[in-house]
Amino acid sequence: MKPPIITLLTDFGSQDYFVGAMKGVILSINPEARIVDITHEIPPQDIRAAAFNLLACYKFFPAGTIHVAVVDPGVGSARRPLVIESGGQLFVGPDNGIFSWVCEREGDYRCIHLTNDKFFHHPVSATFHGRDIFAPVAAALSKGVPDSEIGVPVDDPVQLERIRSRSVEINAVEGHIIHIDRFGNCITNLTRADFSNGARLIINNREITSFRDFFAAGNDEAGELFCILGSAGFLEVAARNAGAARFLNAFVGQRVKLIRSAKK
Amino acid sequence: MKPPIITLLTDFGSQDYFVGAMKGVILSINPEARIVDITHEIPPQDIRAAAFNLLACYKFFPAGTIHVAVVDPGVGSARRPLVIESGGQLFVGPDNGIFSWVCEREGDYRCIHLTNDKFFHHPVSATFHGRDIFAPVAAALSKGVPDSEIGVPVDDPVQLERIRSRSVEINAVEGHIIHIDRFGNCITNLTRADFSNGARLIINNREITSFRDFFAAGNDEAGELFCILGSAGFLEVAARNAGAARFLNAFVGQRVKLIRSAKK
Amino acid sequence: MKPPIITLLTDFGSQDYFVGAMKGVILSINPEARIVDITHEIPPQDIRAAAFNLLACYKFFPAGTIHVAVVDPGVGSARRPLVIESGGQLFVGPDNGIFSWVCEREGDYRCIHLTNDKFFHHPVSATFHGRDIFAPVAAALSKGVPDSEIGVPVDDPVQLERIRSRSVEINAVEGHIIHIDRFGNCITNLTRADFSNGARLIINNREITSFRDFFAAGNDEAGELFCILGSAGFLEVAARNAGAARFLNAFVGQRVKLIRSAKK
Repeated sequence: MKPPIITLLTDFGSQDYFVGAMKGVILSINPEARIVDITHEIPPQDIRAAAFNLLACYKFFPAGTIHVAVVDPGVGSARRPLVIESGGQLFVGPDNGIFSWVCEREGDYRCIHLTNDKFFHHPVSATFHGRDIFAPVAAALSKGVPDSEIGVPVDDPVQLERIRSRSVEINAVEGHIIHIDRFGNCITNLTRADFSNGARLIINNREITSFRDFFAAGNDEAGELFCILGSAGFLEVAARNAGAARFLNAFVGQRVKLIRSAKK
Repeated sequence: MKPPIITLLTDFGSQDYFVGAMKGVILSINPEARIVDITHEIPPQDIRAAAFNLLACYKFFPAGTIHVAVVDPGVGSARRPLVIESGGQLFVGPDNGIFSWVCEREGDYRCIHLTNDKFFHHPVSATFHGRDIFAPVAAALSKGVPDSEIGVPVDDPVQLERIRSRSVEINAVEGHIIHIDRFGNCITNLTRADFSNGARLIINNREITSFRDFFAAGNDEAGELFCILGSAGFLEVAARNAGAARFLNAFVGQRVKLIRSAKK
Repeated sequence: MKPPIITLLTDFGSQDYFVGAMKGVILSINPEARIVDITHEIPPQDIRAAAFNLLACYKFFPAGTIHVAVVDPGVGSARRPLVIESGGQLFVGPDNGIFSWVCEREGDYRCIHLTNDKFFHHPVSATFHGRDIFAPVAAALSKGVPDSEIGVPVDDPVQLERIRSRSVEINAVEGHIIHIDRFGNCITNLTRADFSNGARLIINNREITSFRDFFAAGNDEAGELFCILGSAGFLEVAARNAGAARFLNAFVGQRVKLIRSAKK
């Protein structure tokens, strides 16, 4: 039997004890759990950055993986703790939209409000549900406890705006930047289906006409900006060996416009 | 049988090979060991930050866990390498007080000076005992080697000043900031027992009168500072969606004074 | 049977989903693999920093360990994906010299060009071979697939300049700084064999005459610079409780000259 996998994605950073405490709680309940860090460097309270990073990697984990995602500005308030099943995997975290892009992509999901505090770590603090609710619930799920024992079905989880919220005109698509990665690449919410040969991207009054197949194909000397279909499946703006975001003064949420080529 | 857990807490950072080398040494000796990173981002040589973070999470690990903590400005000098047993767990590291707050909380401990270099990795460098002494000793312990084979009992480990060193007046308690976390929350050494309804905290000539139950209860608009009982069990000063430490110009070691309410 | 160990060393940073995706791919193929992070904080595209950090720790891992190293400015171009066997371990990554210092030290190696895309993750992106080629190939190797099934032997892997490229005069050795670590220690390519009692090191017009056995032996008050044989086996320039690199305005690649003592 395969050891159950529990991934962690938080904004807790790496300098404090927070992640260690969560791992201790998980291993105290299920010593067989395989814990995998996705990242703990989500900018504090940036739910969209968490939602994007989870969206970009959950599919690469095996069926049955349990993803714990804790970016939780509402911790201690009335916001609900949830477990969501979607795409054959489980997602545990606060009800603030953090899983809504996964659900949007999968199209179908099942949602449970975690109400049975028998599965929580006591005393439950008002400030650290990652340790006291989400970690122990994930550990219980990893031991085979059915989610129906831990809570009750709900059908109104909080949703972020749709990631694929494009405005499509006859010859153009408007989207926005959903993430800027470590390399300064600007990831948009446009996909392969949105563009064709001869397209150009308008961002911050600049027009980008190069569409490259891979990073090394860029023109080093000129610091040339180019578009590329990135590894998360979205169109990215990049600059070889440099951060495109700085060149462009780009920010998350910024509008971009893709002008499609005139019909040949 | 449960796989043995070895946690690592260091100031080695994440950019160099140091932590990787320690893990290689451990896995070479005990391939079954479960290695858990607590943090490697302790500020260089900050023994108190290490002591605090360990104090804040060790209790969440199962009995028998082996914690390796290496913040070690005295590496290579005459300072002793130790293993301490306290609260049903083992602690391996340098004799510089890094474990003294755990021992203070537990009240009871047993201490061994690591003298049997049969359990070290050779050649033992003068600069990296994390790799050459603490990691291999932890791996040996994780295989069931009794600590009595690895060293000799001592009863005078280096102690930090007591974490609970408050100055208590009739209507006030004086403490200090012991840690500032990633979110800018200022963690004091005061606990629930020190305050009651109507208390107020004086820090850097500011008086804080709000005592909140959780972060989201703070008043966003005003950037209001408030006190909260934090997840490590200590009173913290926080500001919702902002770093309290910056607002307050706070630093570790800074005095704080809690004025208790007049008796009703 | 021991669980196979796969280490990861990249410049992907810790804030994005990249490393999580690689781990998901590995665990989907081999749930038994033990994944160990060496570092993901190699400066973007700095092949030498990656080569040095791998060189400094691979020997501490058990025989048969599989090291995946991905610092890959040429991803998507014609640069070859490789697996190299050297010193009883396997190394998986791009053909850009990242493994050449390990091969130089071991003296002997065997090199395979990864050509059998049956072992890749499909679709293979043009931008993320860490996820789509190197991770799944490492997972296949960890399950016992022979490298001969995955590719074809080649004998011309890209080589960095030799790490031991010193210029030796009668009474002096010239080397350079190969790495600066988190603590600001400047690691040179000189080794124990290069110096003797009474030696002095010239760097940036400064002469360093102190050779210490360990860090705590340095003279705190003066911020004194000193030389020390570091834990990676190379001569380092350090300053106790301070970063030597800042004092010296030192940079990777900077020349240093070791004047050996006059023959006694």
